[in-house]
Order: sequence, then structure tokens, then C-alpha cells
Amino acid sequence: MDLNADLAEGFGRWELGEDALLLGIVTSANVACGFHAGDPRVIRRACALAAENGVAIGAHVGYRDLAGFGRRFVDVDPGELTDEVIYQIGALAGIARASGTEVRYVKPHGALYNALGSHPDQAAAVVEAVRQYDPGVALLGLAGASWLDTAKEAGLTVFREAFADRAYLPDGSLASRREPGSVLHDPELIAQRCVRLANGEPIEAVDGSWISLRADSICVHGDNERAVEIARAVRARLLDAGVPLEAFVPGRGEASNDACTTVR
Amino acid sequence: MDLNADLAEGFGRWELGEDALLLGIVTSANVACGFHAGDPRVIRRACALAAENGVAIGAHVGYRDLAGFGRRFVDVDPGELTDEVIYQIGALAGIARASGTEVRYVKPHGALYNALGSHPDQAAAVVEAVRQYDPGVALLGLAGASWLDTAKEAGLTVFREAFADRAYLPDGSLASRREPGSVLHDPELIAQRCVRLANGEPIEAVDGSWISLRADSICVHGDNERAVEIARAVRARLLDAGVPLEAFVPGRGEASNDACTTVR
Amino acid sequence: MDLNADLAEGFGRWELGEDALLLGIVTSANVACGFHAGDPRVIRRACALAAENGVAIGAHVGYRDLAGFGRRFVDVDPGELTDEVIYQIGALAGIARASGTEVRYVKPHGALYNALGSHPDQAAAVVEAVRQYDPGVALLGLAGASWLDTAKEAGLTVFREAFADRAYLPDGSLASRREPGSVLHDPELIAQRCVRLANGEPIEAVDGSWISLRADSICVHGDNERAVEIARAVRARLLDAGVPLEAFVPGRGEASNDACTTVR
Amino acid sequence: MDLNADLAEGFGRWELGEDALLLGIVTSANVACGFHAGDPRVIRRACALAAENGVAIGAHVGYRDLAGFGRRFVDVDPGELTDEVIYQIGALAGIARASGTEVRYVKPHGALYNALGSHPDQAAAVVEAVRQYDPGVALLGLAGASWLDTAKEAGLTVFREAFADRAYLPDGSLASRREPGSVLHDPELIAQRCVRLANGEPIEAVDGSWISLRADSICVHGDNERAVEIARAVRARLLDAGVPLEAFVPGRGEASNDACTTVR
Repeated sequence: MDLNADLAEGFGRWELGEDALLLGIVTSANVACGFHAGDPRVIRRACALAAENGVAIGAHVGYRDLAGFGRRFVDVDPGELTDEVIYQIGALAGIARASGTEVRYVKPHGALYNALGSHPDQAAAVVEAVRQYDPGVALLGLAGASWLDTAKEAGLTVFREAFADRAYLPDGSLASRREPGSVLHDPELIAQRCVRLANGEPIEAVDGSWISLRADSICVHGDNERAVEIARAVRARLLDAGVPLEAFVPGRGEASNDACTTVR
Repeated sequence: MDLNADLAEGFGRWELGEDALLLGIVTSANVACGFHAGDPRVIRRACALAAENGVAIGAHVGYRDLAGFGRRFVDVDPGELTDEVIYQIGALAGIARASGTEVRYVKPHGALYNALGSHPDQAAAVVEAVRQYDPGVALLGLAGASWLDTAKEAGLTVFREAFADRAYLPDGSLASRREPGSVLHDPELIAQRCVRLANGEPIEAVDGSWISLRADSICVHGDNERAVEIARAVRARLLDAGVPLEAFVPGRGEASNDACTTVR
Repeated sequence: MDLNADLAEGFGRWELGEDALLLGIVTSANVACGFHAGDPRVIRRACALAAENGVAIGAHVGYRDLAGFGRRFVDVDPGELTDEVIYQIGALAGIARASGTEVRYVKPHGALYNALGSHPDQAAAVVEAVRQYDPGVALLGLAGASWLDTAKEAGLTVFREAFADRAYLPDGSLASRREPGSVLHDPELIAQRCVRLANGEPIEAVDGSWISLRADSICVHGDNERAVEIARAVRARLLDAGVPLEAFVPGRGEASNDACTTVR
Repeated sequence: MDLNADLAEGFGRWELGEDALLLGIVTSANVACGFHAGDPRVIRRACALAAENGVAIGAHVGYRDLAGFGRRFVDVDPGELTDEVIYQIGALAGIARASGTEVRYVKPHGALYNALGSHPDQAAAVVEAVRQYDPGVALLGLAGASWLDTAKEAGLTVFREAFADRAYLPDGSLASRREPGSVLHDPELIAQRCVRLANGEPIEAVDGSWISLRADSICVHGDNERAVEIARAVRARLLDAGVPLEAFVPGRGEASNDACTTVR
């Protein structure tokens, strides 16, 4: 199982997240590329630390929206989005290269991540960007997201992630952050869910039904000290349970379309 | 002899320069990387056309200053400048790669270009960026500029350029644009100077003395129709004079320190 | 009748539009405020020329999107949009004040202009911004747009505009720019439509039906030389027809809800 | 005596500083205007809280440099700087107005603050901006700074500030932050110096000499919890010592040129 987290989310004077701590916990780092967060220096620090810790680097690509942290949908032209995604991957790849490492995968960020399900032209634009840049670079998205199938059809390697601290609807989609109970806070409970996920066992959805998610990676958050504590608990329980933690390797991506199944 | 020009200097809705025309004239394209100009789409167009025309691509790196078009000195921290330059090279390299081509050299832009002579820490930062990114990427700067020696000492390949349409001081530096007569406008006169340059013959400085410049490349401008006419004349006269036009090749860079000699 | 045009649409090195020419033609200037276009210097020039020519100044407020020129919908939080609109009005008002003039009205730009019809929360946010900033500042929008009624209900003065060079659908909305024939190019034809509009006479819609639009202002474009020629023709024919040209005056806005009526 | 602090220094997702706490301590708030920090929403919150607390608002104007937080010198054209400063004052004034308050003074930020001493053309540009915008708006700068005299000669009201937590050189200038001991950390010691300052008594410079500073305001920092503690101590000791705390009032500015005198 892979553990991933969002990193390099500061900008200039503004710091955000516990990059140094997280890079001792996760196996994959989604590094901001400068469009929604991440200046070259903070990107550099994250890449250098990732290289030191043997953490895989992914391009956390987003809309060009520093003021909105990439959390606002932007109705960008798909052709332009393709070029913007390539630009971001390349910029990160340049810094990764100077740090002795490389970009292994791409994960859309924020509003772009959410938009890909409902805007097939934007999804196709992101897939096209990766295909044009390097078909050997993988894509990471929400387990069950249909746009990952588009990516597979384009010949790309696809990895699917589940969220450690988020409640799920019975169909395998995430409960909205606006709903009470949609974000879990108990490190022990979260860690136990992760162990079940890693073992292929069903987890409980918000309505009490049980769903089975097939995920290659678990996303942990790290933008506050508490989040780091949760990430540590997840890592510890997974290791305790004998789940090997390692970055996913392009070429070994999960190919199943049925990432979510209701089991009972 | 190489002919180079600045390209991809638009941004979003704003167009600037005659990229399509110039890419039929020059042998090397200094492509803006998004910090002083150049959005991913305009960069993509320039890279695609350069690939089509067999024109070499260089990263035209600048200060992060869209509002000032990179023409204002910014007292940026050298360590940060290194990361910013790597980011820019990488971003362009990503788009070049998607366009079937690659970044062959780096040329600083605007105020950064000018600052490197008087700010050795910024010069060292740019050199370090290229060295860290890929020592096989060359640097292009003003014939006679001392920072190019720094780059050579760091093991980088260096190419030197002269300006087709600018008047020179007796020491080989450019006459300030604020001085009358500092910019030449007559295509025929400019083209003749270029032929002399290419043949290693001295050209006349503003004070009537004659100086000998050793240049690997001639920079032509292209931000208006008249400039394109000049670029065409330069190309035509050079070819008429039997000067072969081709992009410089990293590994074959000029190593002389005495890029400018007063001859009489 | 008022004639309005979009101005100050350059940014830094990038020029756009024929501000100096237009300010001798129109009676109201929609001045970009820096979010989608317009740096302080180009805004200053537009304000100074507007003051000289007795042209009224409006704040052309847009999404924060320089790269997209404000032409891409952004799903911005309404509360944030209110503050962003106030910021833009204030910034322009500061420069207008230094130029001896003032902001008389607000006109949304680009994607924001279009979004207000379909996103009532964004419409309410813009209305709220003007109300909070100064209820004496008017709003200018498309004749027939329902959000102008929201503005009136909030106690604001509302002015309605028609487009000189755009084809209309039978319901008074603009034919999409993507449809053939949606943009008119013949100065004489455009000018004649404007005279009909000014005289309260119906104009022909794209389907051959005739519609009556009640407009306080006609919007002309000015981003190329041809557009200036059209603007000149519109002004000349209106004056020939005895239509007085003057900026609308807040407090004298048109209050009718039935801005568009099909007449036959 | 006035107490001032820098506020609204976040941007979008990035928070910085303890605005809500500080606005219960200081009498004047230097509010960022969006060029080096401060989005419209964070500006709005600061203005609303300042209005509630009866705290005077100043425009903390800076270079257009979000990535550098306005801490890097930018060689901006003076004419452009004038327009940029007016833009920033106006933008803040718009939000202040919507919050029921107003901009009373202007304080340059960061590298601009420092540059005004050595770049008289930039100093003149800032002074000209305030003069053009509204000569009734005051300027706040370092006690002893020569550019404040330029401002006075232009007819503007000038206020002088001292720094609570910074060591001084014998000539009344600030010891560089890079020097050990240049920043004081002991709340009690800092507060005592402030009482001396307020009473017109000399304070000790870094070399052990004693200097007398004439200041209308004391600047406290607030970008961390410790800083807030210091600010609280300064306020408490000043009140204990019977020093009335109130925002300076334009028109009552200090006119002395000899803001710093070595006393023994």
C-alpha cells in the first residue's frame, strides 16, 4: 500500500503544512507546482527531502489560482488546460531532476480533482497532457472516478486512492465536507479503516452500509500537527498489520473498473 | 552563425511579436517561460513551430515580474533565483518535450540579462541553476560579458551573442537605449554589420573606433513588422555572403575570453 | 443616448485597444481595474484622458484572472466576490480621484458579465458590493438581464446597454459569438441599427423577427482599428439623426423591467 | 502615543499574523493592500475589526511582489510607482469605506520602506502618490528618515515611528536584522524602552551610547503568539506609565527634522 500526502503548499512568505514531518511518514508526495501553491523554493525543499527519504514524487497540478488555492472551479479551455498541466509537470520535473529524483505520477488538485468527474473535456485534457508529456507517468485519482478509465483507455497507468479521514457515501464517493461527520478525527479509528482498506476488507459508509474500495494508495492530510499525528497512526497500524508500505510503481497500476462494490 | 530572437512574449489575451514569421528566419528561439511573459499556450505554439522549422529552443528565463515584463531589477535572493531558473527551464522543457523537441540553451532576459554583469551572486545563481538542471544545456549571453566566464569555469558551454540593431561602445558593451543613435533602423546597414561580424571583421563603435566582436550568434528583434523585415534582411545578406546559418550546438561553444578587441 | 466602450485593457508591456481614439468618441468608459486587465499606469492614462474629454468612468470589474482575461467562469465564493468587486472599484476610484474625476458606475466584465444571469448568488454579490461601496454608483448591464432587477430592488440605479455590433435572438439575448452572423462588421449597417435603437424603433433579430430593446447606452468595441471606425460611424449617424450623446447620470436610470419586447 | 502594527498579511488560503488579537491592542493598523500581501477578504476582515475597535487604518503599500512578500527591492519606474501606490490606497479605501471607516495614513512596506532612504526618486514617487490622492492623508515612516522631510516639503503631514523590538545604531538607524542582538525578545525590556521613548527619554543604542528618538508612534509586530505577548506588554506598561494611547491625527503630525539626537 502507498501512503500519499499533499506537500509544498506554501508560497513565498506563507508556510503551510508539515512537509518535513510528513516526508518521514508517506511513500508518495503530491508536490504543488506553482499554479495553486508552491513557489520554486518550497518545491525544491520538498523534492530534496523526498529524494532523501526515498519518497516518490507526483505533480499536484491545479488551476492557475493562487488566490483561491485551486479550490474554485475555473472554466478553462481544455486545450489550454493541457498545456498548463504539461507546464506544471515540467516545472516540477526540472526541480526534481536538480534534486536527483523525478516525477512518477500526476494527481489533480482541489477543484480540478473534483471537476474531472463532471467535466469530461477537462478530464480528457489532463489525460492528454500526461500522454503528451510522458505516457510512462502515472495518474492518481479517486478510487471509482470514471475519468481514470479514460486515462486507462489512453494507455496510461492509473492508481486509485482512498481517503483516510473522510466518510464515504454508499456509492463510494466522498461525503461532502459540508455534511456533519464527513471528516473523521480519531487517529485510531482512521488507522483501523486504513488497515481494512489495505486488507481488501469493507469499510462502513455514512449510512451504515458496508462498501469495498479497491485502492492503491491512501491519502493522508498534513496541514496541521493533528493531521501529522493521524498520518503517523495510519503508518504505524498498517505496518503493525503487516501491510508493506511502498510507493506505487508505474506499470503496476490497478486496472479494475469496479473500484467500489457494496458488500452488504 | 546562429540567428536568435525572443519569442512567446505574449500572455493570455495579449499578443506580442511575430513568432510565426520569425520562426521561418532564425535558427534559435529564446522562448519566454512564464515569469516575465509567456503562458503555456503561447509557449506551446512557439515550441511546435520551432520543432517544425528545425529551430533550436532556448529558455528565456527572467525575474518573476509579469507587470514589468522582466525589465526591472529585482533584488532576489540568489538561492531562490537558482530555483526559479530551474523551474522555468523545466516548465519550458516539459512543453518542448510534448512538442517533440528540447531545451538546448538558457538565455537570461531583460533586467536579469543586464544584472548578471554587476551582480555576481545573481550570475552565480543562474550558472548554478543550469549546472544543477543539466550541465549539457548551454548558456547564451552578451559577447564580452564576464559572467559567461563564470559559467565556463563551472564547466558549462557558453555561446556569445552580438546585437544586430544596437550601437556599441568602444569597450564592446551596448550603448544605452536612452542615447540617441543607440538603436539602428536601416535594414541594409544592420545586415552589413552582421556580415562583418560573421566574417570576423571589425564593426564601427559609436565613437567611430572599430571593434572586433567574437560572437556565436546574432540577436534580431521581432516584436513588430519592421523588425521582421530587418531579420529577413540579416538572414538574406548572411546567406548571400556564404555564411552558413545553423543553431549553435552545445559542446561546440566558443571559449575565448577576449570576445571584444579594439582593432583601430 | 450614452455610448460606452471597454478601456485600459492592456497590462504592463502589453497594449490592447485604441484608448486614446475611443475617448474622443464615447461618452462612458468602462475602465479595467487590474483583475482581468489594466495595470495602474494604463488605468491612469485612461482616467486622465477620460477626464480631459468629459467621459464618464465606470469600473469594469472582473474575475481575478489575468491569464484568462476574465473570460473564464470562476466559481468564486459570493462573499469573496463582494470584497473583490469593492477592491476593484476602490482601486479605480483612487486613480480616478488623482486624475480629477470619479467612478460613476460599475459594469461587470467578460465571464462575470455573462455569469450574472445564471448565477444569482454571484449577481447578488456584485449588487451587494456596489451597495456597500456607495449606493450612488450605478450598475450597467445587458438590457433585459434579470440581475439588473435585483440591483433595482436593492435600491441601486440601473442602466441597460445594447450592443452595436452583435446579432440578437428573438428574446433579446445576444446570439452566441460562435454562431455565424453573430457579429456584425458593416459600419453603416451597425450605425443604422443604433439610430433605430436610440429612437425606440425595433431592430431585426437573427430569425427575421423584430424586437424592441430599451437601452440607455450602446456598447461599441475598440480593440482594433476597424472597431474604431465602427464606433466613429455610430457616433456620427446618431448625431446626424439628432440623438444627443451624453453619459447617463446616476439617478436618471431606466426603470423598466420590459427591456425587450417582440413587436412583430 | 500611537501603537501601530502590520495587518492583513495573509493571502487566500494562507494566514499570517494575529489580526484579531492585535486589533484589541494597537491604535493604528497598517493594512496590506494586495501587492505584497492581503486579498480583499482578509483586508475586509481587518478593516471591519479596526472599525469595531476604533483603530485607525493606514495603507501599507508595497512593491507588486507576492512571491517575495514585498521584501525585495524592485527597480520600478517612479511614475509607475506613483500610480501603483494610488491604486493600493484606493483599493484599501474602498474596502475601508464599505466597512464604515477610512484610510488615514500611508506607510510603505518592506523593501519599499527601506528603499526610500536611498532612492530619492522612489521616495518622491510615494510622496507624489499621496499628494495626488489626498493631501489630507498622512505618511508614516522611520523616525529620522530623510524622505519624510521630502513629504513635509510637499505639504503632507508626517508621523515618525520607532520600533519596540529593534536595536538602534548610534545615528538612530536600525541595526541590521542580520546582526546578533538586533531584535529584542524580552517583553519587559521592550516595554520599558517604549515607556522611555514615550516620555522623551533616551534609549540605549547597540554600542552603549544613549540616543533620543522623537517618535509619534511605536511599531509592534504581531506575526506570532510571542509577538502578541510583547505588544500586550508594551500597551500595558505605557498605560501604567500614564501615557495616553491614541491614533495620531492627521494635521497634528510631528514637524521636527531632528528626530534623533545623541544625548550622551
